[in-house]
Amino acid sequence: MTAKSVYPDKSVCLIKEIGDGVIPCAIPYMIHTLSDPKQNAVGNMPLENAGIDVKVGKVVSLDVKTHTVTLESGEVFSYERLVLATGTDTIMPPIPGVDKEGVFTIRKSMSAMTALREIVHKSKRVAIIGGGFIGAEFADELSKASDVEVHLIEIMPKLLYNAFDDEFCDEIAQVLYKLGIKIHTSHSVLSIDGNNSAESVTLDDGKKIPVDMVLVSIGAKPAGKIAEDAGLRIVENGSIWVDEYMRTSTENIFAVGDCAVKRDFFTRKAAPVWLASTATAEARNAGTNIFGIRVLHQIQGTIAAFSTQIGGVSFASAGMTCRTCEKEGFRIVTATAVAPDRHPGMLPGARELKVKLVFADRSGILLGGQVSGGPSVGELINMIALAIQKKVTVRELDMMQIATHPLLTSAPTVHPMIGAAHQALAMMRASVK
Amino acid sequence: MTAKSVYPDKSVCLIKEIGDGVIPCAIPYMIHTLSDPKQNAVGNMPLENAGIDVKVGKVVSLDVKTHTVTLESGEVFSYERLVLATGTDTIMPPIPGVDKEGVFTIRKSMSAMTALREIVHKSKRVAIIGGGFIGAEFADELSKASDVEVHLIEIMPKLLYNAFDDEFCDEIAQVLYKLGIKIHTSHSVLSIDGNNSAESVTLDDGKKIPVDMVLVSIGAKPAGKIAEDAGLRIVENGSIWVDEYMRTSTENIFAVGDCAVKRDFFTRKAAPVWLASTATAEARNAGTNIFGIRVLHQIQGTIAAFSTQIGGVSFASAGMTCRTCEKEGFRIVTATAVAPDRHPGMLPGARELKVKLVFADRSGILLGGQVSGGPSVGELINMIALAIQKKVTVRELDMMQIATHPLLTSAPTVHPMIGAAHQALAMMRASVK
Repeated sequence: MTAKSVYPDKSVCLIKEIGDGVIPCAIPYMIHTLSDPKQNAVGNMPLENAGIDVKVGKVVSLDVKTHTVTLESGEVFSYERLVLATGTDTIMPPIPGVDKEGVFTIRKSMSAMTALREIVHKSKRVAIIGGGFIGAEFADELSKASDVEVHLIEIMPKLLYNAFDDEFCDEIAQVLYKLGIKIHTSHSVLSIDGNNSAESVTLDDGKKIPVDMVLVSIGAKPAGKIAEDAGLRIVENGSIWVDEYMRTSTENIFAVGDCAVKRDFFTRKAAPVWLASTATAEARNAGTNIFGIRVLHQIQGTIAAFSTQIGGVSFASAGMTCRTCEKEGFRIVTATAVAPDRHPGMLPGARELKVKLVFADRSGILLGGQVSGGPSVGELINMIALAIQKKVTVRELDMMQIATHPLLTSAPTVHPMIGAAHQALAMMRASVK
Repeated sequence: MTAKSVYPDKSVCLIKEIGDGVIPCAIPYMIHTLSDPKQNAVGNMPLENAGIDVKVGKVVSLDVKTHTVTLESGEVFSYERLVLATGTDTIMPPIPGVDKEGVFTIRKSMSAMTALREIVHKSKRVAIIGGGFIGAEFADELSKASDVEVHLIEIMPKLLYNAFDDEFCDEIAQVLYKLGIKIHTSHSVLSIDGNNSAESVTLDDGKKIPVDMVLVSIGAKPAGKIAEDAGLRIVENGSIWVDEYMRTSTENIFAVGDCAVKRDFFTRKAAPVWLASTATAEARNAGTNIFGIRVLHQIQGTIAAFSTQIGGVSFASAGMTCRTCEKEGFRIVTATAVAPDRHPGMLPGARELKVKLVFADRSGILLGGQVSGGPSVGELINMIALAIQKKVTVRELDMMQIATHPLLTSAPTVHPMIGAAHQALAMMRASVK
C-alpha cells in the first residue's frame, strides 16, 4: 500500500499463500466472542482499491540472478524490487504424540479456524501447551463456555514470562484462575497419549490430564526458507538479515515483518519479538525506501509493545522489564503507581489502573513500562511506547502535560504514569544524597 | 507535596479558603452520575500524611517586605518561600438580572454544590449561559433527568469553539441535540427577567426562554488580586507574571496554576487556558525548584490538552487546531483518519475512532490533534500530547511502533493516529512534486 502510494507509476503485485485470510490477532475471539467467525475475514478490497494486483499462490523459489519468483503452479513473476513478508511458521514441539488427531495449532486461514471453532465447541476438556499471549488469550476465550475444563501448561515459572515482570504475570494467572483455568507453570509435556487421537497429556511430573483436544501455542519461528534457498543472508532464529531500511543482503530485495531479523531497541541484539505493529511500521519503512532511501533510521529496533485483555482485565508492556534489565546488565530505578482510572474513584465504571516504569538509574531515560487496568490501558501503553522511542527521561514525564477528565482518566494529581515517574525521581534523589 | 518530598526538612503550610473542597473537574457529575455528591469530596488526608500543615482561612494581604501573609482572622504567617496558587474567579457577565435569585455559577465547595444539586433536581427548565466545556458537560448531565428542558446558549458560532475545529464542534452539538438539549449558538443573553428570581432569559434576537434556573459558565479569570495589591507584576488576563520556573517578579514568591500566566507552547503568547493538568505540572516544577533551580525549562508553555465525554462520546484536543493555526499564521498540512477502535470492527463494543492531526507543512512537526470516539480517547490524546511536547514529526509518527490488541485498539494497519500521519505525509509529498 505504501509503495503504491509513494510510487504510483510502479505496478505492485502481492502474492499470498492463503486466499481466505483472517485478522491474526483476533483469532482467539473467533471461538466465542464473535458471533460469526466470518466477521474476522480479511478481504482484498483495500489492496485492489489501491491498484494493487493480488495473486493467491505459493511461492516455491526465488532466483536472485533472473529477478524472478516461481509459484507452485509454475507461474513465474519477475520483479524490479522484491519484498519478502513471509511471516513465521508455527513451532511444533518434538513431543511424542504431537502428530495425533485432535492436536491443533493456529493457522491464519478462515477454513482452518472455522474447523477449529467447531471442534472446540464440541470439546469439554482442552489442554493448551504454551502460556504466552496466544495460550492465555485462548484459555480466557475457551472459559466463556460454561462446561469446559481448560488446562494451560507453561514450561517457564510464570505465564507470559517474557513480556511481564512477576507481579503482572501473577495478576494474569490470578485472573485466569478465577475463570476456572487449571494452570500448570514450570511444567513440560512428556507425551500426548491416545490411540489415534489425543486422549490425555502427560506432564513431566507424571500427572495425566484427560483431554478431548490439545492446542499447541509454544511460539513461532521466522519463515526464511525461500530466502535461505536463494542465498540471502540468514541470521538469528532463522530470520532474514536486513539493514535499517529493511534491505536484505541481496540487492533489490527487502524483507519486512516476522521473517526479517528483529533487533532490540536498547541492545541491538536479535530479539525474538514478532508483532503486527512492528511489522506494519517496517512495511511503511520499506514501502517508502524501496526506490531510494527517503526515511532515515526510523526503525531503530523493536520496543516489544504488547497489549492484551484477559478475563476483562487489560495488560500491556513496552520496552524492557526488570527481568530483561537484570539479564542484560542495565542498572535501573523502578517505581509503580496505582490510581482509579476515573476521578473521583466512586464514578461508575472506575477501575484500578497500575503503571510500573523502569528507568536507567543515572540518565533517567525510560527503558520500559507495564500497565494493568481497564480498557484505557490499550492507548496508555502507546504513550509509554512513544516515550520509549523518543528516549524521554523521568524528569520530562514528571513535568508532562496531559489531558484528564473524570469519566476518562485518573486525576491529574495521581495519574499513575506521572505518579510512577515522580516516585522514581524521589528514589533517584535519595540514592545520590 | 513535591516541596515537602524534595525538602523534607522544611515545614510546609497550605492555606486554603474552602474547607469543604471538591474535585473541580467532576462537579458536573455531582448532579446525577454520582449517587451521593459527597463521593466527590477532597479531604486533607494525603497532605497531612505527607507532613503538611493545612490551614483553612482567607488570606487578605501579602507583605513582601516582612515576608508575611495575613488572614481575615487576623492571623499572620511568615514565609521563607511563598507559592501563590489562588486559581481563578468565575466571570459573571454584565447582564441585567444576573444577580437575581435562581442564577447560579460553579463554586468549588461541597456546601455550594450540594445546594445547587437540590435546586437542579427541582428545576424543569434550565438555561445554561456559555457553551464551553463546563456548559456542555452540565447540559449532558442535566439531560439524564427525563423531564427537564435544557437550553445551552453560546455567543460564538459553535460550542467549544476555542478547543476544537468545526467538524468536532458539530459532532458535539449533534450529540447534545440527540439528548434533547436546545442549542442556541451565535446568541447572547440580553437580560435575565423575573421579579425576585429568574423566570426567563431574553436572547439577542428577542426570543424569551422561560426558566426555573440559570447556570452561568462563560469562563473564569486568574485570581491575582492579592498579588497585585502586594506589587507583583500582573500581565495578560490579570494573571501573575512568572518565569520558566514559576518565579514571580518578587524574590522568593512563586505562582502556579490558573493564577500564573499561561503561555502558548508554540507562540509563547499569553494563552487563556486553565487546566488542572497544567497546574499540577507547574506545581511539581515549583515544588522541585523552590530552593534552587533543579529542573530546567520543563514547562515550555501550555499545549492546552483537553478531554471530555458528552452523551457517552469522548472528545479530546491537544495543541493547535486549524482555527488557531489560521489565526496565528501557521502554514499547515492536516489529515483525518477514522477506524473502529477494535479489530475486527464487528467485535462487541467497537466504536468509531476519529483522529485529526495538524502538522507544520515544511518541518512536519506535530502542532495539534483532535480525537473523538470511545473511552480510549482519554489516553490516546495523551500520546498526542506527549508527541507535541517532544516535537515529534509526521515521519516519526508514520514509523511509530505501538501495541495493538483486538479488544483494545484499532488494527495496526489502520490505527487512526498513524493513519492520519501517513495521509499527511502523502499530501506533503504531493505538494513538493
